[in-house]
Amino acid sequence: VRDLAVVTTNGNADEVLAGLAERAAGAAQSLADASDEQLAVALSAMADRLSAAQDEVAAENERDLDAAQRAGMSPALLDRLRLGKDRLDDLAANLHLLAGTPPMVREIPIRELPGGLRLVERRRPVGVIGVNYEARPNVTIDVASQLVKSRNAGVLRTGSAAIGTAKALHQHVIAPALVQAGIDAAVIQIVGEPGHEYAEALVRQPGLIRLVILRGSGETTARLGAEAARHGVRTLAHAEGGGVLYIDTAADPDTVRRLVKQGTDRLGVCNRVNLILVTEAVADRFEPLIRGELDERGIEISAAPLSHPIGHEWALDTGHEATVTLLRVKDELDAARIANTETSGLAATIATEDAGTARRFLDRYHGTGAFWNATTRLLDGFKLLAVPETGINVDHMPGPRGPVTFADLYLRQYLVMPG
Amino acid sequence: VRDLAVVTTNGNADEVLAGLAERAAGAAQSLADASDEQLAVALSAMADRLSAAQDEVAAENERDLDAAQRAGMSPALLDRLRLGKDRLDDLAANLHLLAGTPPMVREIPIRELPGGLRLVERRRPVGVIGVNYEARPNVTIDVASQLVKSRNAGVLRTGSAAIGTAKALHQHVIAPALVQAGIDAAVIQIVGEPGHEYAEALVRQPGLIRLVILRGSGETTARLGAEAARHGVRTLAHAEGGGVLYIDTAADPDTVRRLVKQGTDRLGVCNRVNLILVTEAVADRFEPLIRGELDERGIEISAAPLSHPIGHEWALDTGHEATVTLLRVKDELDAARIANTETSGLAATIATEDAGTARRFLDRYHGTGAFWNATTRLLDGFKLLAVPETGINVDHMPGPRGPVTFADLYLRQYLVMPG
Repeated sequence: VRDLAVVTTNGNADEVLAGLAERAAGAAQSLADASDEQLAVALSAMADRLSAAQDEVAAENERDLDAAQRAGMSPALLDRLRLGKDRLDDLAANLHLLAGTPPMVREIPIRELPGGLRLVERRRPVGVIGVNYEARPNVTIDVASQLVKSRNAGVLRTGSAAIGTAKALHQHVIAPALVQAGIDAAVIQIVGEPGHEYAEALVRQPGLIRLVILRGSGETTARLGAEAARHGVRTLAHAEGGGVLYIDTAADPDTVRRLVKQGTDRLGVCNRVNLILVTEAVADRFEPLIRGELDERGIEISAAPLSHPIGHEWALDTGHEATVTLLRVKDELDAARIANTETSGLAATIATEDAGTARRFLDRYHGTGAFWNATTRLLDGFKLLAVPETGINVDHMPGPRGPVTFADLYLRQYLVMPG
Repeated sequence: VRDLAVVTTNGNADEVLAGLAERAAGAAQSLADASDEQLAVALSAMADRLSAAQDEVAAENERDLDAAQRAGMSPALLDRLRLGKDRLDDLAANLHLLAGTPPMVREIPIRELPGGLRLVERRRPVGVIGVNYEARPNVTIDVASQLVKSRNAGVLRTGSAAIGTAKALHQHVIAPALVQAGIDAAVIQIVGEPGHEYAEALVRQPGLIRLVILRGSGETTARLGAEAARHGVRTLAHAEGGGVLYIDTAADPDTVRRLVKQGTDRLGVCNRVNLILVTEAVADRFEPLIRGELDERGIEISAAPLSHPIGHEWALDTGHEATVTLLRVKDELDAARIANTETSGLAATIATEDAGTARRFLDRYHGTGAFWNATTRLLDGFKLLAVPETGINVDHMPGPRGPVTFADLYLRQYLVMPG
């Protein structure tokens, strides 16, 4: 299946992307028509081939790592680029899990209509979905498997540093697994050229790729989102992240300690605690406790007067990831207002033992995840819904919002048939 | 409540729209917090006030009609502008129906999470929704009532000819009904200035109005959709419409007659039959029958060679509404391909007695409504789902698609709470 792996046209980025999208679109029907069993076979076969093709993939990954190291990539990013034995095992386990996950609901009976007709809500594949993601080889498998599970064709673009590994994964794992299941391997296309112009081209193929999932946050994502909007292409994205932890008068100190600890267990992720809000009246009681817990983990506090916007996302501030902003607020309504207006609206927690206060905060906060005495780190498709997430969307729109999973990636159609 | 009715700033259109949106946003919480009972009271009160304020509304409507007539408006449009006794009665009946419709599902338990937590999917109001619609006064009530039912604030802009009536309806019906239910009347704002620049300003308030529903189809809608996209504002719209009727080899002649007749009962609507596709092999048998049925109704046929695009929408072609395009196709797959690529993807019917052929067509066609031996005229929120539609969306996107009703106008939020 070598010839299916990657198009390596030397034309400009838009031409390359249009070509890849056309190939994916041409094959899409094969995936739309596949049975649930075929999908399960394809996903299980990917898992098996991850082990079988381990050497070929490792060799390409080593080449990517060498090149990245020579180019001065940071140790943290090099670690994300590495596709070691542990990650391969995790990926295989996730693939088997996804293969066994109940298939997407495709037809929902709604009601009988006059004249002996019946109305069914049908969920159809979107078509060709674009996905842009960082230089992490495991995401190639992750995303490809979720597109297959949702019967959507896709054009995948990884960060330039991981392209070699992505191509190897496509050639030795994804494509042959699809063929084994009787599905046209061209449904998954990989952008094989390095360079950010390919990410920009990915989001401006309105007739071919109507929806692009932008993984990861930051300025690049924001810029790609704006470029997509200009071309009438829709995106599922969270250009900014950062969890909020609000500590109410009636918070339990042990719960606050647990939430600070759980919320800062990883500092480079979007759903970590980024901003802590403490009720003024109890600030003197809770701030030392928060400081102690953060000190222990080597995390600094940025307190008023702030030299940055309230919602500044530390996870994206290289070298300053180990920082949390701490502010005093009047009450739970003030906290919800700040979380709504000064942050991305990803997720927020209220720490309180008072159910009424919790309800008031949860009723006012309109982010994608609202948590009571539970960490914002739970905002994750797998943790919440037991299926991997394709991406996170913080758009204030009807449709998939928060963690987006394969089960969200469908078009609604009304079907009317004789009874 | 006179002062709540309409802002009449003399600033430019963007300033006026931003002002209206801010007023609506400022009041939105009052609607978000309202109980189901309050919503029912507000809707019933609107119905009652439609009768009570009949004279005031009729006087304004007469003024709008006089002005439109003097400006040379066509009789068909004048008829749509008229808010007579019959329409008021219909509106009141619809309001009572909507008041009695089960309220939106707001919390759906999903599952238990580790640590004694439970996960709930919550459906929250979107915030401020913009709506642009033609010069039909009944739509003001229709749209306002659906926004109230879905707990969304709104900025409503009607065609310039109907603004007087819209203001009267707001002042004498909508606002006092909201106040009667204990809801801030400012949640519904009416654009009180004539001129298309206000429609353009409505779709470019990204921070304030993130979603705009564009009713009606045609070039204006397409242009507004593009302007919205450029500003990162999402729209629910169908810039083009037009139903497709495909006649298969195994079609029943009586069914074909019925579908032609039902599909052309009104010629100015988007879900009427616009394009008839007949299988080549049986064209000689079915075409005379189709011609006969259309002739009887004074409808012309545009046949190959066409002097217009295949999907040309006759409903929008003033003076040529009484036309249907007729084409021969190879089979049901060819028909589905044409319906997918040459039309807006609103709705299509297959006429056949063969279940296998029907399934193949319905599996391939990806428009918002797919019908088997049933007319595309059924593509309508009320006919399909027994609730009025807020608008129709033909976007190829996850989320509300096809007829959009109040129950679609929500934001998904994941809520995690102690068990």
